[in-house]
Amino acid sequence: MRLTADARGVYPIAPTPFFDDGAIDTASIDRMTDFYLSIGATGVTILGQLGEAPKLDHAESVAIAAQVIRRAPQLPVVVGVSAPGFAPMRALTREVMDAGAAGVMIAPPNTLRTDEQIVNYYKQAAESIGTDVPFVLQDYPLTFSVLMTPGVIRRIVTEIPSCVMLKHEDWPGLEKISTLRGYERDGSMRRIAILCGNGGLFLDFEVERGADGANTGYCFPDMLCDVVRLNAEGKRDEAHDLFDAHLPLLRYEQQPGVGLAVRKYVLMKRGILTSAAQRKPVAAMSKAAQAEVDYLLKRLAKRDQRAKFAA
Amino acid sequence: MRLTADARGVYPIAPTPFFDDGAIDTASIDRMTDFYLSIGATGVTILGQLGEAPKLDHAESVAIAAQVIRRAPQLPVVVGVSAPGFAPMRALTREVMDAGAAGVMIAPPNTLRTDEQIVNYYKQAAESIGTDVPFVLQDYPLTFSVLMTPGVIRRIVTEIPSCVMLKHEDWPGLEKISTLRGYERDGSMRRIAILCGNGGLFLDFEVERGADGANTGYCFPDMLCDVVRLNAEGKRDEAHDLFDAHLPLLRYEQQPGVGLAVRKYVLMKRGILTSAAQRKPVAAMSKAAQAEVDYLLKRLAKRDQRAKFAA
Amino acid sequence: MRLTADARGVYPIAPTPFFDDGAIDTASIDRMTDFYLSIGATGVTILGQLGEAPKLDHAESVAIAAQVIRRAPQLPVVVGVSAPGFAPMRALTREVMDAGAAGVMIAPPNTLRTDEQIVNYYKQAAESIGTDVPFVLQDYPLTFSVLMTPGVIRRIVTEIPSCVMLKHEDWPGLEKISTLRGYERDGSMRRIAILCGNGGLFLDFEVERGADGANTGYCFPDMLCDVVRLNAEGKRDEAHDLFDAHLPLLRYEQQPGVGLAVRKYVLMKRGILTSAAQRKPVAAMSKAAQAEVDYLLKRLAKRDQRAKFAA
Amino acid sequence: MRLTADARGVYPIAPTPFFDDGAIDTASIDRMTDFYLSIGATGVTILGQLGEAPKLDHAESVAIAAQVIRRAPQLPVVVGVSAPGFAPMRALTREVMDAGAAGVMIAPPNTLRTDEQIVNYYKQAAESIGTDVPFVLQDYPLTFSVLMTPGVIRRIVTEIPSCVMLKHEDWPGLEKISTLRGYERDGSMRRIAILCGNGGLFLDFEVERGADGANTGYCFPDMLCDVVRLNAEGKRDEAHDLFDAHLPLLRYEQQPGVGLAVRKYVLMKRGILTSAAQRKPVAAMSKAAQAEVDYLLKRLAKRDQRAKFAA
Repeated sequence: MRLTADARGVYPIAPTPFFDDGAIDTASIDRMTDFYLSIGATGVTILGQLGEAPKLDHAESVAIAAQVIRRAPQLPVVVGVSAPGFAPMRALTREVMDAGAAGVMIAPPNTLRTDEQIVNYYKQAAESIGTDVPFVLQDYPLTFSVLMTPGVIRRIVTEIPSCVMLKHEDWPGLEKISTLRGYERDGSMRRIAILCGNGGLFLDFEVERGADGANTGYCFPDMLCDVVRLNAEGKRDEAHDLFDAHLPLLRYEQQPGVGLAVRKYVLMKRGILTSAAQRKPVAAMSKAAQAEVDYLLKRLAKRDQRAKFAA
Repeated sequence: MRLTADARGVYPIAPTPFFDDGAIDTASIDRMTDFYLSIGATGVTILGQLGEAPKLDHAESVAIAAQVIRRAPQLPVVVGVSAPGFAPMRALTREVMDAGAAGVMIAPPNTLRTDEQIVNYYKQAAESIGTDVPFVLQDYPLTFSVLMTPGVIRRIVTEIPSCVMLKHEDWPGLEKISTLRGYERDGSMRRIAILCGNGGLFLDFEVERGADGANTGYCFPDMLCDVVRLNAEGKRDEAHDLFDAHLPLLRYEQQPGVGLAVRKYVLMKRGILTSAAQRKPVAAMSKAAQAEVDYLLKRLAKRDQRAKFAA
Repeated sequence: MRLTADARGVYPIAPTPFFDDGAIDTASIDRMTDFYLSIGATGVTILGQLGEAPKLDHAESVAIAAQVIRRAPQLPVVVGVSAPGFAPMRALTREVMDAGAAGVMIAPPNTLRTDEQIVNYYKQAAESIGTDVPFVLQDYPLTFSVLMTPGVIRRIVTEIPSCVMLKHEDWPGLEKISTLRGYERDGSMRRIAILCGNGGLFLDFEVERGADGANTGYCFPDMLCDVVRLNAEGKRDEAHDLFDAHLPLLRYEQQPGVGLAVRKYVLMKRGILTSAAQRKPVAAMSKAAQAEVDYLLKRLAKRDQRAKFAA
Repeated sequence: MRLTADARGVYPIAPTPFFDDGAIDTASIDRMTDFYLSIGATGVTILGQLGEAPKLDHAESVAIAAQVIRRAPQLPVVVGVSAPGFAPMRALTREVMDAGAAGVMIAPPNTLRTDEQIVNYYKQAAESIGTDVPFVLQDYPLTFSVLMTPGVIRRIVTEIPSCVMLKHEDWPGLEKISTLRGYERDGSMRRIAILCGNGGLFLDFEVERGADGANTGYCFPDMLCDVVRLNAEGKRDEAHDLFDAHLPLLRYEQQPGVGLAVRKYVLMKRGILTSAAQRKPVAAMSKAAQAEVDYLLKRLAKRDQRAKFAA
């Protein structure tokens, strides 16, 4: 099963579960994978920025990928392989593709500046990993400091056939989706899947602008699935009602640094992760922050049954 | 009336009203100033980043400041004087202080990197404008790319007596407020006013962490005033209820680039500005974006009477 | 006299002479202007990055420009007008052009990233100052963090007729000159003047690659004039011999921060400036650095008579 | 043999020799190692920024380190282990230390901004690799965009005992050396080795300011050895004469991007490398650049016998 430009729905960005001592928690990996299947996720992305990938060594990364792939053979699994050099990127790609991954995700190194540099980087990366490996283009200027105009994305899509999906997380980004979909309509760019990240902060409008779904790690991925579905069903107000109920917490989780701690904390409270632990170095959550999240969950419980554990 | 560390409440960041042809709309300046007075604003900040200050020449800047000061003599008026050199910064400061401004606001140039560079910059700036002029330290890494740790802010506050207020808009920033208030409690830093910017995205929790209020330009500054007041009265749930009702629109407006267009558009719809025009170069709002804002306003109207014009 | 694409030779980047108390030293301005004329400079650029322009207020800037223009009516005078906003940029441009300037120089704000942003910025700037005003495009990534590919420069030159000169100071930059000259040969770009900055560090090869001369502030601009002349006369070895004799000092002066202090110190020793003073804030030269410059001058004196004052 | 703060002399930064097809050229590794021994190098650094480390996979990196260590058992070998995560950094460190490396070199990730972030990063890195592993602190703002003040370096040295050497390549950097040596004299910092990089562009004065030698990859490392020796012998003019003879070529090689191609080209011409090839992606040298290097070598041959092959 290979990732294609027809991907849609929700590909949660999976955190990597650890025990408090830093060991990988394989039982939680299975539980989390099962959870994604149960909520109607159409794929899953692992070892991304918020999967603490840089804290894993090569063997661990491969083992986690293999476990998720085995556990959910019906689910396309995308693996983050971003690396400072093409040699380790290729090495990891080869191993996870052999293990059954559907494709890989590549973020740009934050030293890229000009349009030319960006396009060339992805050409070289695609050649390095093998032009038969489908890849996801990650467009996240807030974190990577690399600005890709719609024109640059069009060049990448046009010049590199193995680019099949955009992880859209530019900010602001609504017009970008409209522009890219316009390129497709006017025939100047082939269609690609556009799934949205950036914590989901604009998912309500992104799907209305033409995005195919979500590719982010909010602690209620089931809400993301519902919003994508409600939008597809034309139930605009219902989609916004649900989204707005989650927005105070979603906004809180979207904070860089502390966000992953919030995400793991809630997933632990939901019974999916055994521990909220991160591997060192850790951006921990203060007691005040924990109380704020508890308060937000309690408020959410009034509007979404799935948060009733916090009521 | 000079700005002091006792400032609190809401200092809206005022946009600069223009006619469609780019001329300054003085009638709207008066109307906007009156509006701020009517909602209980405790001050106002003009010629900031979102006041299109770089599009104004020196004489225009001085004239706008003078008009607002005359119109609201009971309101402390803070004037943005950030500039690439100390000579124009001093020139503008002197003129607006002579005209009756309460103080000035200084953002860091985006070339500052080390703690030492940041502290020295503010020492030099304070000396340049005159150590008798109270100033607001603007801490907005997302826009200015300058990271100030709490320790650096403490050094600035300690070494420069004329620094009386922090425009807090670091992101994430809740722990920063707690840390700074902790410095005050443990006696290692004198008390300063902390008013929060960043579009108000975390105002609900910022006031709970010890901030004195808001210093931002959301198109419903009256909501900001209410949230600050409700928090002061201990009405936590009510404060959050009101804040959450606005959060979908507030989040939309907080987008860089398009945010100012949204703000001016809503202020025009509210009857405060004659036109939503910006001076060139303009980051315009698409039709799709306008329809999205209209939809958000309509939804807001169900929960806040002040948006009923959009129902 | 307007600046055109036929400019060539050496346009020294003039420092701004101050007395020790920070007052402008007008006698030194005249002496420096006379000196530039006497050595065969074909133009002069004032109020640039190293002219301490941000430390001057508007009136001072205009006065300095007017003085140089009056003193050397036969010399095209280019004035740096870079500013964070188009309003002050236009205001200064209008005044200095009225006073007889030949053109202006515009550096990019360091927030520009994509090709699109860069081209649009220059279009807006050209429109703001008036499309009849010839301008110099400053390409200095090391200082401004803006990367312009040859393709972007071609777009600017093609889309903006009033761009007549490139101040080339990319690093590395030799291939860029070759590429741009190639564009001219293949007819895809009209010819522009290319004068080289970056302290002159590669002037020996830049003129061989097709640059028209130098536009930098090395403390021996007479050497720059000679190197450009010797190259034009086909005396390659002599050009390099002279250049190499100066390279140890030139390299020392090219250091950011301390470089301006070195430049003013040597110009003072050469009798051109009364004082080496800078306006505050100052990047001063230590005693050790001064001794090093003295040593370099002494060594230079053995190979170039013009440094014999240091022997 | 462990690296200590007593290191001095010249640790060349070794390139990684490849054949034209990208395979590692082990014969050239031996020849290069022997060459370093023959010229009096006191150590060697491998797998650094210009050693094309990101193009090597883990096994290749370990094999190269092991080969150099075996070939020169009397020479301390420092291995670059910079990585985006601590897991791969630790993995490589452990293997090369087991193989007999003397220590490792760690560059800062370019996302670090505040003093606090920098110090914390090195604390975490030192803990990750093991506090018994001596490491070299690489201070190269031009490439890594991380600014370390002397005060930050003092904190790192003071708080992390395993930091034994500074690879000094700040620019400008002479005052920094003086400041750090001043800290040692006033007792506020323990002594560390300071070896200078940045292509050697200021080595002539750096050793006079108190640096212990060079840690860079100029294609005539024998010249670096001589300059360090002549300075130690008090032969100032001779040191500068030799340095100045090389400066035109050294400056040419110090250009980012093209520099490595120049270095490998000259080392090939000197008979040390079989090929000047780099692994993809390659920053190639144009024909014009090659002719310029040939010309510089020819000129150098008149002043240094070691370049006579080019005469």
